[in-house]
Amino acid sequence: MARSTLAVILAAGEGTRMKSSLPKVLHAVAGRCMLAHVLASVREAGIDDAAVVVGPGREDVAKVAQKAFPGCTVFTQAERKGTGHAVLAARQALLGGKDVIVLYADTPLVRAQSIETLKAALEDGAHVAVLGFHAANPSGYGRLIVEDGALTRIVEEKDATPDQKAIGFCNGGLMALRGETSLALLDAIGNANAKGEYYLTDAAEIAHQRGLKAVARPIAEEEVHGVNDRVQLAQAEAMMQARLRAAAMKDGVTLIAPETVFFSYDTVIGNDVLVEPNCWFGPGVKIESGAVIHAFSHLEGARVAGGASVGPFARLRPGADLGRDVKVGNFVEIKAAQVEQGAKISHLSYIGDARVGAEANIGAGTITCNYDGYLKHKTDIGAGAFIGSNSALVAPVKVGDNANVGAGSVITRNVTEDALAVARGRQVEIAGWAKRYRQVKKAEKATKAKG
Amino acid sequence: MARSTLAVILAAGEGTRMKSSLPKVLHAVAGRCMLAHVLASVREAGIDDAAVVVGPGREDVAKVAQKAFPGCTVFTQAERKGTGHAVLAARQALLGGKDVIVLYADTPLVRAQSIETLKAALEDGAHVAVLGFHAANPSGYGRLIVEDGALTRIVEEKDATPDQKAIGFCNGGLMALRGETSLALLDAIGNANAKGEYYLTDAAEIAHQRGLKAVARPIAEEEVHGVNDRVQLAQAEAMMQARLRAAAMKDGVTLIAPETVFFSYDTVIGNDVLVEPNCWFGPGVKIESGAVIHAFSHLEGARVAGGASVGPFARLRPGADLGRDVKVGNFVEIKAAQVEQGAKISHLSYIGDARVGAEANIGAGTITCNYDGYLKHKTDIGAGAFIGSNSALVAPVKVGDNANVGAGSVITRNVTEDALAVARGRQVEIAGWAKRYRQVKKAEKATKAKG
Amino acid sequence: MARSTLAVILAAGEGTRMKSSLPKVLHAVAGRCMLAHVLASVREAGIDDAAVVVGPGREDVAKVAQKAFPGCTVFTQAERKGTGHAVLAARQALLGGKDVIVLYADTPLVRAQSIETLKAALEDGAHVAVLGFHAANPSGYGRLIVEDGALTRIVEEKDATPDQKAIGFCNGGLMALRGETSLALLDAIGNANAKGEYYLTDAAEIAHQRGLKAVARPIAEEEVHGVNDRVQLAQAEAMMQARLRAAAMKDGVTLIAPETVFFSYDTVIGNDVLVEPNCWFGPGVKIESGAVIHAFSHLEGARVAGGASVGPFARLRPGADLGRDVKVGNFVEIKAAQVEQGAKISHLSYIGDARVGAEANIGAGTITCNYDGYLKHKTDIGAGAFIGSNSALVAPVKVGDNANVGAGSVITRNVTEDALAVARGRQVEIAGWAKRYRQVKKAEKATKAKG
Repeated sequence: MARSTLAVILAAGEGTRMKSSLPKVLHAVAGRCMLAHVLASVREAGIDDAAVVVGPGREDVAKVAQKAFPGCTVFTQAERKGTGHAVLAARQALLGGKDVIVLYADTPLVRAQSIETLKAALEDGAHVAVLGFHAANPSGYGRLIVEDGALTRIVEEKDATPDQKAIGFCNGGLMALRGETSLALLDAIGNANAKGEYYLTDAAEIAHQRGLKAVARPIAEEEVHGVNDRVQLAQAEAMMQARLRAAAMKDGVTLIAPETVFFSYDTVIGNDVLVEPNCWFGPGVKIESGAVIHAFSHLEGARVAGGASVGPFARLRPGADLGRDVKVGNFVEIKAAQVEQGAKISHLSYIGDARVGAEANIGAGTITCNYDGYLKHKTDIGAGAFIGSNSALVAPVKVGDNANVGAGSVITRNVTEDALAVARGRQVEIAGWAKRYRQVKKAEKATKAKG
Repeated sequence: MARSTLAVILAAGEGTRMKSSLPKVLHAVAGRCMLAHVLASVREAGIDDAAVVVGPGREDVAKVAQKAFPGCTVFTQAERKGTGHAVLAARQALLGGKDVIVLYADTPLVRAQSIETLKAALEDGAHVAVLGFHAANPSGYGRLIVEDGALTRIVEEKDATPDQKAIGFCNGGLMALRGETSLALLDAIGNANAKGEYYLTDAAEIAHQRGLKAVARPIAEEEVHGVNDRVQLAQAEAMMQARLRAAAMKDGVTLIAPETVFFSYDTVIGNDVLVEPNCWFGPGVKIESGAVIHAFSHLEGARVAGGASVGPFARLRPGADLGRDVKVGNFVEIKAAQVEQGAKISHLSYIGDARVGAEANIGAGTITCNYDGYLKHKTDIGAGAFIGSNSALVAPVKVGDNANVGAGSVITRNVTEDALAVARGRQVEIAGWAKRYRQVKKAEKATKAKG
Repeated sequence: MARSTLAVILAAGEGTRMKSSLPKVLHAVAGRCMLAHVLASVREAGIDDAAVVVGPGREDVAKVAQKAFPGCTVFTQAERKGTGHAVLAARQALLGGKDVIVLYADTPLVRAQSIETLKAALEDGAHVAVLGFHAANPSGYGRLIVEDGALTRIVEEKDATPDQKAIGFCNGGLMALRGETSLALLDAIGNANAKGEYYLTDAAEIAHQRGLKAVARPIAEEEVHGVNDRVQLAQAEAMMQARLRAAAMKDGVTLIAPETVFFSYDTVIGNDVLVEPNCWFGPGVKIESGAVIHAFSHLEGARVAGGASVGPFARLRPGADLGRDVKVGNFVEIKAAQVEQGAKISHLSYIGDARVGAEANIGAGTITCNYDGYLKHKTDIGAGAFIGSNSALVAPVKVGDNANVGAGSVITRNVTEDALAVARGRQVEIAGWAKRYRQVKKAEKATKAKG
């Protein structure tokens, strides 16, 4: 029978080395805050009960936690007395007697599989299970003392004997505690140490001393990468991006220069998509098979259908929805706009709050004037319409199917289908004007230069 | 006397791990497909006869091969029975009795010098010559067994004894076969192995057994990097870019951040060119000495003369031809346009299918309306002309030398030299309108918010 | 008592491997030439007397030196006879009897602390002090022979015994000479060697032989990285950028992808600034706490206040001054313009030589026409003004507070506060025109295609 599990996420760290007014665990990695990453892995591991321990007055963290994991309970650690003390801040949740898995909101790279490994250890009969990693450089980490398959102790670096220091298997921090004994073990942790704090790590030794099985299971060092400053935050970002890029390439996406492409945690990207160097995918992007994203493109909250071509130098903002074979070219911004099959917006345009019909051609420099200073309005461009360059379409306005708008027009009234609309001045010429102007201006410039 | 050589390029691999509808060997590295890279090295090594072996029904690969290496013959490997079998698919070409060099279309980094090394080995009397590399990590590669200077065998990893596994000299795949004995050796390859395939590598042992000289020559590991998935494709791209960047820097180009600059295989770039970070050079670009390419520039098929300045955020498309001291600034796109000495296009413009005369000044927001929805037309801007900002030039149209165009004009008729052309509305003012508008709009917004 | 120090900077190297018409030491790293970097470290180390030794005819180098270190003296090394000879080119300055510290203008990464280390060594009684580094790969470097704490000799690689070659402590080049004995030691250096040159390194052995204390002090290998070609220049840039990025992150700046952000030597950036990937900071940029710099932004000579948002795809040129909560969006260029609190310039605009009042809203495609072909003029936009999209403001011109400008207008005369100004053509429609046009054009295209 499957056991029932509660995740306890410690999110009360002050993060002073971040030098930030934002709580550490709300800093983002790949477009999602670290706390939400950890909660997502918890959910993915099949756990539906979570308690988040936050610092005093951190309603902002509580709010994010409840949004990321609806139904989670939030507890406040009033004083900072160590990890063991932090877990017990969630005592009310622990009373339910579920198995407990302790995670840290500042280790955003932990995978669901690793959480499942801990669950499995308890299912196999352990009362305490700890994830350990084989450190590239163990210096500074607590060492896992494993004897005959049992975890007997976790020794801090400073307390370690030379023999123990030679051990490369280090404490990854994550710990599982069997429901039947979890509170008893946690309550048994003392604070008779230099700092007077309660260390969760002591639970392993206490269990062992009581004859309860404690075990260590391996985890990749990367997964327990903790973030305490902006350098470590950048490292976490780099590792997460490496995962996302590798997954995309495995699925048949060409990344010409993977290290220059930035995905969000939720980017969806089909096979045979070509992504040129230097592209940015914010949250909520879906690119379908066979699309091309040219260099220097910036997308968020957008969908791009197969056969479509985006950029270089294109920006798709939330609500941009490009149909098949659409072309969005350089220096073009699209926002909250449905661009239908085969339409082309090739240069220097802003299309916002709009529909662009199939096969329509939007000339260079076209602007949908969607904002009147107070409210946003819609522009509707019909299928097959041709909008001349440098036109302004003052919303709300509608251009009918197959209508033409003359270059340089300011369109304020609807245009009938198949009609031509023009709104611009008539060309007049003043012969020799430029020649006289040059003479005047040159003189003026010379005077100024002397002046 | 120089011997005559036939290159046999194996290009029939399915590349299923690419997860692509495009055949693997047509995927590009540095702006040219892998097959074409290999054929270019063949040509550069002085070989003018090539046979390309493709998979069944791969007319697309055949077409690319014939374009990249006019006159090459194409053979189909109907069934997939190993590399030895693949080479024999070109039996018709082998009958000519030339020396044979076998290459792989998915190893795009092979250099001409390495091919020449193989040729030289045959000229020195070898019947079989193989390129081997000293592997950083030999695990998984075939080992070259060399005794007294003779290559006696190539042993697959799985068949290797512990002693053989300790050998770090690995099979690079490329092989040369002396014309006099090539067919006899190839036909002697059997398929008595687990997979029932014919392995080209067996030719070395067969030659040795027959008393024919077989030799191994060294090649850099990088050159035999094979591409089977998108990760390896990205690695090949990275290695090729590293070569191109190093060559440019050696020639006196400043790359502030080499790892962010992407060249094509054919980029030509003079000394004392400064390239800021994050630039992209597609095929067909030539930058002359002393030009500056600012950050975030995207060039393809363009020429930039000395003293010219491009970007940041500029895009030069095919046919952009910038003369000396030309300035193309931010958010500017140039296509099929000759921009003559000293002309300036500094901001937010699209110049396509055009000539811009020497020292002309193109204001911000200028658009050449080159497309009428059906055909492209030319814009001709004279020397010394001044085009006011936000102008649209509706092609075909000509602005004479030293003429001025007023800001915001839509020019549909030719402008005489030295004249001023203006085409815009007259400014009118409605006093207090904005104040009343604000009151109305604020009320409207408030209503909506309640509504 | 503090001793008095003269810095001698050797800047006469030809730098032929740079393949440049610019003298090597004038090539830039992080926005400042290498010579100026070294002079800045000299100044930072509390030294206010410097002699710069340049090659014959290098007035350009002399000029840069005098600008970077006002009051420095410049000497010419007429012939190239080694480093000892180069230092003696500054004999006139050495006569003053100050302590001498010799630096190289092509090692831009030297830190002030290392110069201070040399000063301290002389204050401790040394007559010669040399900075040495523990080389990752010592091959090719001179070795420091240290016996009983005394530096007895510097041995060139080619003259080193196997025992000496095993030494990993290498000559970093920088040397301090005690004022009382400096000239005597320098004059004692001979040229009885293969190249007939005078090597500064000999001063160590000469001092030791004369019973004068010579010592070696450690320096990080990075600091003595010398630049002789563009690859080494790129390496120096990378190391300098790594320093600048690490310092920013330590101070509480989020760099999502540090390796894609390029700072200048003088970039000032507050905590809780978020910098997305691919941003470029030229000289003279100040970003205040809490601003956001989105991806693909290019800034130089600009100030950005807290709460402001820049980019993506924004360019701030010198004199751009963004107040609190200002928004500058995509494809926007700002130059010499004061943008006051809360103003928004969201898309596709050029604002130059201007003031934009608080809370003003500048529509997409707005251009300040600041240049008449001869002189630049100012645009003044009042607080709360609303500039409709695709407008051109022909400077000098003033738009009053809370005035509106209609979309697509060309504004050539001042606009009164609270007024609406419009300058554009009236919209006319020709029914069915587009349909007839299509028929004509399709026929024309078909004819051309046949033709």
